[in-house]
Amino acid sequence: MKQLGIIGAGRIGRVHAESISRMAAAAVKTLADPFMSPEIEKWAAQLGVDKCVKDYKEIIADPAIDGVLICSPTDTHADISLEAIAAGKHVFCEKPVSQKLDEILAVKKALAASPNIKYLVGFNRRFDHNFKAARAAVEQGKVGEQHIVRITSRDPGPPPIEYIKVSGGLFMDMTIHDFDMLRYLTGSEVDEVFVRAANKVDPAIGQAGDIDTAVITLTMKNSVIAIIENSRKAAYGYDQRVEVFGSKGMVSIGNDAPSTAVISTEDGVTGEKPLHFFLERYMDAYVQEARDFVTAIENDTPVPVGIEDGLQSVLIAMACALSHKESRAVKMSEIG
Amino acid sequence: MKQLGIIGAGRIGRVHAESISRMAAAAVKTLADPFMSPEIEKWAAQLGVDKCVKDYKEIIADPAIDGVLICSPTDTHADISLEAIAAGKHVFCEKPVSQKLDEILAVKKALAASPNIKYLVGFNRRFDHNFKAARAAVEQGKVGEQHIVRITSRDPGPPPIEYIKVSGGLFMDMTIHDFDMLRYLTGSEVDEVFVRAANKVDPAIGQAGDIDTAVITLTMKNSVIAIIENSRKAAYGYDQRVEVFGSKGMVSIGNDAPSTAVISTEDGVTGEKPLHFFLERYMDAYVQEARDFVTAIENDTPVPVGIEDGLQSVLIAMACALSHKESRAVKMSEIG
Amino acid sequence: MKQLGIIGAGRIGRVHAESISRMAAAAVKTLADPFMSPEIEKWAAQLGVDKCVKDYKEIIADPAIDGVLICSPTDTHADISLEAIAAGKHVFCEKPVSQKLDEILAVKKALAASPNIKYLVGFNRRFDHNFKAARAAVEQGKVGEQHIVRITSRDPGPPPIEYIKVSGGLFMDMTIHDFDMLRYLTGSEVDEVFVRAANKVDPAIGQAGDIDTAVITLTMKNSVIAIIENSRKAAYGYDQRVEVFGSKGMVSIGNDAPSTAVISTEDGVTGEKPLHFFLERYMDAYVQEARDFVTAIENDTPVPVGIEDGLQSVLIAMACALSHKESRAVKMSEIG
Amino acid sequence: MKQLGIIGAGRIGRVHAESISRMAAAAVKTLADPFMSPEIEKWAAQLGVDKCVKDYKEIIADPAIDGVLICSPTDTHADISLEAIAAGKHVFCEKPVSQKLDEILAVKKALAASPNIKYLVGFNRRFDHNFKAARAAVEQGKVGEQHIVRITSRDPGPPPIEYIKVSGGLFMDMTIHDFDMLRYLTGSEVDEVFVRAANKVDPAIGQAGDIDTAVITLTMKNSVIAIIENSRKAAYGYDQRVEVFGSKGMVSIGNDAPSTAVISTEDGVTGEKPLHFFLERYMDAYVQEARDFVTAIENDTPVPVGIEDGLQSVLIAMACALSHKESRAVKMSEIG
Repeated sequence: MKQLGIIGAGRIGRVHAESISRMAAAAVKTLADPFMSPEIEKWAAQLGVDKCVKDYKEIIADPAIDGVLICSPTDTHADISLEAIAAGKHVFCEKPVSQKLDEILAVKKALAASPNIKYLVGFNRRFDHNFKAARAAVEQGKVGEQHIVRITSRDPGPPPIEYIKVSGGLFMDMTIHDFDMLRYLTGSEVDEVFVRAANKVDPAIGQAGDIDTAVITLTMKNSVIAIIENSRKAAYGYDQRVEVFGSKGMVSIGNDAPSTAVISTEDGVTGEKPLHFFLERYMDAYVQEARDFVTAIENDTPVPVGIEDGLQSVLIAMACALSHKESRAVKMSEIG
Repeated sequence: MKQLGIIGAGRIGRVHAESISRMAAAAVKTLADPFMSPEIEKWAAQLGVDKCVKDYKEIIADPAIDGVLICSPTDTHADISLEAIAAGKHVFCEKPVSQKLDEILAVKKALAASPNIKYLVGFNRRFDHNFKAARAAVEQGKVGEQHIVRITSRDPGPPPIEYIKVSGGLFMDMTIHDFDMLRYLTGSEVDEVFVRAANKVDPAIGQAGDIDTAVITLTMKNSVIAIIENSRKAAYGYDQRVEVFGSKGMVSIGNDAPSTAVISTEDGVTGEKPLHFFLERYMDAYVQEARDFVTAIENDTPVPVGIEDGLQSVLIAMACALSHKESRAVKMSEIG
Repeated sequence: MKQLGIIGAGRIGRVHAESISRMAAAAVKTLADPFMSPEIEKWAAQLGVDKCVKDYKEIIADPAIDGVLICSPTDTHADISLEAIAAGKHVFCEKPVSQKLDEILAVKKALAASPNIKYLVGFNRRFDHNFKAARAAVEQGKVGEQHIVRITSRDPGPPPIEYIKVSGGLFMDMTIHDFDMLRYLTGSEVDEVFVRAANKVDPAIGQAGDIDTAVITLTMKNSVIAIIENSRKAAYGYDQRVEVFGSKGMVSIGNDAPSTAVISTEDGVTGEKPLHFFLERYMDAYVQEARDFVTAIENDTPVPVGIEDGLQSVLIAMACALSHKESRAVKMSEIG
Repeated sequence: MKQLGIIGAGRIGRVHAESISRMAAAAVKTLADPFMSPEIEKWAAQLGVDKCVKDYKEIIADPAIDGVLICSPTDTHADISLEAIAAGKHVFCEKPVSQKLDEILAVKKALAASPNIKYLVGFNRRFDHNFKAARAAVEQGKVGEQHIVRITSRDPGPPPIEYIKVSGGLFMDMTIHDFDMLRYLTGSEVDEVFVRAANKVDPAIGQAGDIDTAVITLTMKNSVIAIIENSRKAAYGYDQRVEVFGSKGMVSIGNDAPSTAVISTEDGVTGEKPLHFFLERYMDAYVQEARDFVTAIENDTPVPVGIEDGLQSVLIAMACALSHKESRAVKMSEIG
């Protein structure tokens, strides 16, 4: 049974703790959080977590721990990754690895020197049933040669302004998932981006220097033309759709809803809104993601999404930021 | 933390063991099965089950155990229920409580004498998100006064003939869920049934004395007219739908599918088939059901589905069998 | 070019006049209605109708007229049919041919003696794109051997009480379309019916001696089990659906709506209600029906729906009325 | 009754002749086509067309004719428009008015000098039930302030290469409908365009100097960000969808299909493909369009889509061609 440490007991750290506590093949030995509290300790104990600590370095230093899940704030991801790698531990790192290119490259370099370390980057949508079905259709040749890929990705509402300010901006914080999804679906790298974006949802976001609405045209190296549509606020809820169009047809995925109930009255025929947000929508994907991390460790197989994916998605976010700033198409070769 | 015993380590017993192993409020102390094997023991250990035994009487006799889940063959349900009740244990009994009316009445009588015992009958569909949404729409007055209720319930394929032979027949084994659902949705009792049924799926089912296709018209005491459609084999998978039609409109629920992917090609626009069968389709409902059992014990609140529901559904099955046999409408007052 | 006469300038007579006025192969020579008015005459002139008269006998007597469309009140259908057949004219008769069995049999007898006369009974749904698609799927073997057929047929609101009183009752007036559809889809005749019906929509309908809500179980001679669900009032509009379930799968047809627009807001995901009622819903079917009548005359080919269909549907309505009255299953062999 | 002349007896000219022949308020007096044939004459006679001629100037010269429908090849639209306007006739001109800016401006100038002339440009989609429903939702405030508008517009297959060569290119020939739809839905003008386009469907199209796949980002003057997706070939048929997303929600329209039939088998749950192409998909819109032209003449009311719409859509096409050629965002102020 693999022994794991979780660094960060926030929302996503707790999700992973619950997933792992249900696995036969792994256990959470230690949970670390500088704001560790009796409430968290009680909750952790019920899950069967061995130990709760404030300092994540106890996890790094523990020779019994095989792997760590880094669920701390983004600006700590890279440093903790380097420490964990140095200590010979497998790493599951939440996205993004870093907002700073040199930090990601440092992690990449460290991993190149430690080929036995598994390093999974938490692009949870790759583990979702709908996105997997889209990719499966593509792989089975159902759409033929890909021509146009469209990703619609809209949140039910913006995060707090304080979060926006340190988020790295829309592209780094939110669209980064879509960049990764695009690479996953097309099996190709981005060649060029063109952004049109605006502050439409909340003026405070604009005052914080960020945008909340974006349309991005991306040209892939394999010549697929792609579109990403983003909004920080869809009144009807979390909107996560994809359409892959090609020479033989199209695969499209829609949203998941709380139920299939449809109510027909004199006012119309009404179904449910999409599941509210990422925790509801991707809960099964988070479980699968943690399971795949453990499986990669157990069987010494490659992780399904790694440091190169973490790197590329950040590079694309940087290209988009530049395209937005300079109001022009930007080649990926200009970045990094 | 409530200590539970599970009697029967078959498919459904194992589902409940997994659900309970994830709860903070309960634990599986003992798992009993006459065919206990090292494999099951290993699997149970991983889940945190304390003890595996062959004889369920160890569970009944254990004063530390608060409640038992009876997942053994149907013909043992009533006897074990009586033993458990006598031992002062709460009971979660898989459906049907018994195929024999006197046995159910004996359990009912025992419960009447032990008012503190919680006795939950495993009509899992009441805990399903779609059926709950249908009922919620009804309760919120969306359909107004109910006029017609239709339940479509089709399995992806028939069980083995050996199972059919001891199943009690289609009505007792399969339609029983629909009888309970009808009572749940209408909030009323059946007054009369009329059956048209046939052996269409597999001649072996007919040779075993059973039918595999049925259309049942039921008149409820509140004058709702209801229809149940059954088939032991839908080529496209497990088909579980409901439509409640009334003075203000209609609520209908459809099937759940593995994904929302739709593939459009020159051959048509194709979505996924429904989730294959009850284990996939109702997994979340099974978890919720076990949770509700534990909650009822913890909080000393009524169980959401009890012995009266177990009794009524069996009485309706008997009325349907008589209607089929005599090819006429049968009043519920003729039964029991 | 075939010259036609239309008897009855009510709603459906006018629909047929418009359809025929657009055909190259036929023209409306004369339109007859005892309540002929200047408004109707003006409207008819614009359509290119030659002549407007009060007495339909002018149409019967006109040797230049090849065929007549009988769109007068139901109680005149049979007599006019007999006169038209005697005059050697082809007949398009609105449904039902008559509410009286002996009248239909008289028409049938007259037709047997005049084998060259085309006699089309106006079961418009056979000409509708959705119902045709259901039948096509059946014929192509998509559902395999049929097991269960269900027809849901609900009006948006009941007709005036004065109409109800002379309508012949729900089965003769409304369900008759469903009886014909069932024969069309199954390719078989009804063997037995069982009715559960009630007065739920408007007490005035009950006071008029009729019912407005019905569930009918029908056993076909080829052993298909069928269900018809009727209501005189669906709050969400005209509800016309069919499901044919069999050994290989299922074909189902849904409603047509004014548009495909779907509006997603914080209140839900809402599509349009079905097209309001038969004139909107079946307009294309009415056009096709009239065209098929002209084509049968032109090419001397059989009409797609004839006197036998008119007869059988009325016999089934009579069996249902008896089943309702005596509250028991009724064999078709008891009728007629 | 208004007397009309139709210039051009090709596919679309014949569609309009059929529509008008069904109207009470208008008649086709003359049909002109240089390739007039006995077949066309026979067909026209059946419709009630008075006269068939080879030279359209007979229509222009006929003082009894109130209006003309210009359905001739694109390169003749402007000249015939000018002649018709000079003769005081109302004009229905198929799109585009011209591929040459100076020709459209000449027509615009002539119309400015003849304010009583109705000049309708044939953007048929504005008359379609789905697009109208999308616009109605927008006007009713269902989506709030518009943020992102997306138009998906894909043909079932490319036209012949000979047609491609004189078509003016994808933007002028095909996307021009989408440019107009965008202006119709947003109620605003385009400020800037950015094109990514390619030759993916058929190499012969590339050899003819055209593209067949395009993704266009457009920024509107009211700051809405818009996307148009085009392909000359969707394997599953004519794909015509729109999504308008805003502060309060979203309205989306889907395709129309030949029927609502859904077939469920062990291979999946399959519905029909969209209606094949524009004649099937927009037949009702063509009828409505011709009717609206006649109504504008009769009531002396403005046409719903006029020369300014014809002009703007061509200007946007020119901007897109420049964006594609120079691989950069192009401001509308650079054009014209």
